[in-house]
Amino acid sequence: MAEREGAGRVDIVGAGPGAADLLTVRARDLLAAAEVVVHDRLVSDAVLAFAPGARRIDVGKTPDGPSWRQADIDALLVSLARAGARVVRLKSGDPGVYGRLDEEMDALDAAGVPFEICPGVTAALAAAASARVSLTRRGRNSSLRVLTGRDVDGFAEHDWRALAAPGATAAIYMGVGAADFLRTRLLRAGADPSTPVTAVDNASRPNERTAAAVLGELPDALRRAGVSGPSILLLGLSPRDAAPRAAEPSAPTLAALRAAGDFL
Amino acid sequence: MAEREGAGRVDIVGAGPGAADLLTVRARDLLAAAEVVVHDRLVSDAVLAFAPGARRIDVGKTPDGPSWRQADIDALLVSLARAGARVVRLKSGDPGVYGRLDEEMDALDAAGVPFEICPGVTAALAAAASARVSLTRRGRNSSLRVLTGRDVDGFAEHDWRALAAPGATAAIYMGVGAADFLRTRLLRAGADPSTPVTAVDNASRPNERTAAAVLGELPDALRRAGVSGPSILLLGLSPRDAAPRAAEPSAPTLAALRAAGDFL
Repeated sequence: MAEREGAGRVDIVGAGPGAADLLTVRARDLLAAAEVVVHDRLVSDAVLAFAPGARRIDVGKTPDGPSWRQADIDALLVSLARAGARVVRLKSGDPGVYGRLDEEMDALDAAGVPFEICPGVTAALAAAASARVSLTRRGRNSSLRVLTGRDVDGFAEHDWRALAAPGATAAIYMGVGAADFLRTRLLRAGADPSTPVTAVDNASRPNERTAAAVLGELPDALRRAGVSGPSILLLGLSPRDAAPRAAEPSAPTLAALRAAGDFL
Repeated sequence: MAEREGAGRVDIVGAGPGAADLLTVRARDLLAAAEVVVHDRLVSDAVLAFAPGARRIDVGKTPDGPSWRQADIDALLVSLARAGARVVRLKSGDPGVYGRLDEEMDALDAAGVPFEICPGVTAALAAAASARVSLTRRGRNSSLRVLTGRDVDGFAEHDWRALAAPGATAAIYMGVGAADFLRTRLLRAGADPSTPVTAVDNASRPNERTAAAVLGELPDALRRAGVSGPSILLLGLSPRDAAPRAAEPSAPTLAALRAAGDFL
């Protein structure tokens, strides 16, 4: 491919939460046109099947197995693009949410390789849809915190007092392995042990599992429910099917009846 | 359609940020099969074009024009489903983020109408992709706040002290009209007036516009840049093309060279 030297490009693409049909139409089209797909470990085979003609390079960082250094992934993307390849760098969920995006953009920019970012459905959104809860709700929470249980230094520190406040709502990535730490920190900061926590394991995948727990019973409640990750913990939220709710339909107005009538 | 009484269902579907190819494959398929699409004002024509055969009902709440009450939207969905229709309730972005999702789920459940939720790319993710920034970054911010400038009571109150802290990062929905309020509250809570703010207007649409500003110059800087909404404000983030950055590619290891070599 030496004759195409310099014509390469990289699309950094969100693969969505796992279900093959929860990636975007743009992501699907980019995969179909890709010559090489450089992907993370969590990207599902169902998604990779959209790129049947591409060479696939798994640069997943497995907890125990052989591991790619981030600098090597950066260098790989640059090498492939410089050789003229159409590269899709496929990241699970959305590239901008816990995706190590900056390192790769820096390397591509430094090498003068053109790139675009294609956003995706991040796991928290799929988890909430599966648990049938909204992440924000009028009169309940007008803000949402997105956080990670782990960062480069191990367990991640956060503004525990704010997270422990009544009504605080958070979507926690990489939280299952940090569940004991999260419970300890939040209770020490004054959180109510009966604060609901919804765990959604493998959101949107065939092996999806949703478990209702309370903060004070982490991590045991997750273990009992068979939640092992990759999971999202939704702090402050109960799965809809576990929560009591009001059921008082209000009378439709004339406008609603007319619009329905027009269709019927 | 009386013979189909009771066979109806509702899919509550995220339309994504606006670009036709940033909705999910599942959303596109559900639109293609829909008999009625009940949609918000912000859903783009490009997305609605995926449902050419469906009756469309615009229940958008325009600021000044005629307006649907939420209770009427709820009643409409129930009426249509009870009449046997395949209904898509199409919400811009993701249904669980500022989507008034609970009211509609409550009404459907109370009426015994089956429903599913199809997540979508929420506007903050598209805004970050367009500005080429990550919403989280190792060593910079391991958490993200998602908030709204307005809620049911007008301007929304938040934990301003936490938001004013150095390094705090937030994606703010409905923030342009509240920009003066946001500036005042954040500065009073101790925020640095030079905190970067990126505004992304109409993220992913043909008329998208990205503007770099600093907190102390809101709302004037947004007005000068022609930002008028619907927009996302990214507090604590500069658009990539406006920010200086390190450019020191590290030497690739043998593994990276081999993987690239296998392809070349």
